[in-house]
Amino acid sequence: MKGLDVLLVAGTHGNEVNAPWLLDRWAQRPDLINTHGLKVQSVIGNPAAREAARRYIDRDLNRSFRDDLLASAEPGDHETDRARHLFALHGPDGGQPCRVAIDLHSTTAAMGSCLVLYGRRPADLALAALVQGALGLPIYLHEADAAQTGFLVERWSCGLVIEVGPVAQMVLNQQIVQQTHLALECCLASLAMARKSRGQYPSKLVVHRHLGSCDLPRDEDGEPIALVHPQLERQHWKPLPENAPLFKTASGEDHPQRLDAGASVVFVNEAAYAEKSIAFSVSTREVWPVQSAWRIALEQLMAI
Amino acid sequence: MKGLDVLLVAGTHGNEVNAPWLLDRWAQRPDLINTHGLKVQSVIGNPAAREAARRYIDRDLNRSFRDDLLASAEPGDHETDRARHLFALHGPDGGQPCRVAIDLHSTTAAMGSCLVLYGRRPADLALAALVQGALGLPIYLHEADAAQTGFLVERWSCGLVIEVGPVAQMVLNQQIVQQTHLALECCLASLAMARKSRGQYPSKLVVHRHLGSCDLPRDEDGEPIALVHPQLERQHWKPLPENAPLFKTASGEDHPQRLDAGASVVFVNEAAYAEKSIAFSVSTREVWPVQSAWRIALEQLMAI
Repeated sequence: MKGLDVLLVAGTHGNEVNAPWLLDRWAQRPDLINTHGLKVQSVIGNPAAREAARRYIDRDLNRSFRDDLLASAEPGDHETDRARHLFALHGPDGGQPCRVAIDLHSTTAAMGSCLVLYGRRPADLALAALVQGALGLPIYLHEADAAQTGFLVERWSCGLVIEVGPVAQMVLNQQIVQQTHLALECCLASLAMARKSRGQYPSKLVVHRHLGSCDLPRDEDGEPIALVHPQLERQHWKPLPENAPLFKTASGEDHPQRLDAGASVVFVNEAAYAEKSIAFSVSTREVWPVQSAWRIALEQLMAI
Repeated sequence: MKGLDVLLVAGTHGNEVNAPWLLDRWAQRPDLINTHGLKVQSVIGNPAAREAARRYIDRDLNRSFRDDLLASAEPGDHETDRARHLFALHGPDGGQPCRVAIDLHSTTAAMGSCLVLYGRRPADLALAALVQGALGLPIYLHEADAAQTGFLVERWSCGLVIEVGPVAQMVLNQQIVQQTHLALECCLASLAMARKSRGQYPSKLVVHRHLGSCDLPRDEDGEPIALVHPQLERQHWKPLPENAPLFKTASGEDHPQRLDAGASVVFVNEAAYAEKSIAFSVSTREVWPVQSAWRIALEQLMAI
């Protein structure tokens, strides 16, 4: 396979400003990010939304990489056109094809740094295992959610999201930039080692498998009658205690709704998910043996 | 003086969603907020901006209560018209005049709850002293800043802002709602006690007097070359150590800019201030004796 190794995307959401700032600084100072010898093409995902200081112009770009939208001959809205452009240029048949896509995001949720995978592609799992082995980052496996599809990285043969929080939209935060930088360099180092067949894999991969999402409890007019329980914000990635309250009313009473014990929560109070009616998502922790087929898939993809 | 006691404003900025939610819940359940017998008129400051999920439509409503804008006979933009409407209705000559204005805000800065005063009006200082005596809240005295004028509460004889953080814009957060609720009820209790000449004043008032604001360091193209030092986010209200670094570059080096030792910082990383070129504001801590003239001014204002 010819072309480039990594498509590095920042600012897929225009109001997530930290990764774009890191890439801007990198353009000024080429030694800022260690690419470990890989050919990396960086791009601002949605420059118009960045300029407008909004998540998107017409629709969420990171839900616009759907087969039907990409394949249609109809003129699209702003993000559909942008998705088509990025895929046409950097997809397998493009003028600057990239093997792997890494998409840099931030969240208002206090969930630290993590990797997000969409489905169980062997090469993705290999890359995630290498990064988890090196940094211990949690892996969020977002799969089987019919309400949310069309993620950017799904259109490349291998790809994942680096998600870092908490940071408010439109706030530049040095710590978020550092965490993004660290996770990104670890991904690049892992891909470079995979190319040399020298990746150091752990024996197990811990994944937090997406089970679904919860909205706030609402009255008949659709208005929220209770908000996420403050304890839940400090509960990211950890199994919920039995009978843990999820929501609290304005007068401080616990709302009766509960989850099964053992489930855990992620993306608690992500600002952008209010419009998707998501107060938090629910996941379950699983431990998988790392398979040699994953390693082989990643090494084949990265082979020169 | 006839009319109402308190104009209670939430959602002056349309993307600060917690106080409006509290008032919505209050409308459903009238015992939610203890008004201590006062006549309180609640209003959403900028309903169009709230609907649009933006801070404002045309200009910052909380910089639009300027004499020149209010007095002009020219048709105004959205927020100028809204400021004129609120002042015409609830100002001293309005159909529903209010004696005191309380304006509820939130911030993305990790500064906890505080009161913001604009200038040194005796009745404001009396109210702030009562609340500080009861809850210990810091007082931010925003005065003598030619770049920022036209605040809503300045147009009423007495008024202050309750500012609570950190919370991202557009995120409903139960803890922020609780803190807003607590500070608001304390303000109402204080006004009710002042009416009965039974306010319990501390002997001293601690104020953090505004000295100015700092932007990020920038290159010749106006791009930020360093971000606020992570230590500064944990430094709200506290005097800075000598030679404390203020900014850090993308590669983790301290930027040379410094402040005088003893100054303290507020509104560190407030998302909405990026457009105002404010990375944080700088204040100095002062301790003032509480004056009987303050008490008298507030009691006269509240007298039936």
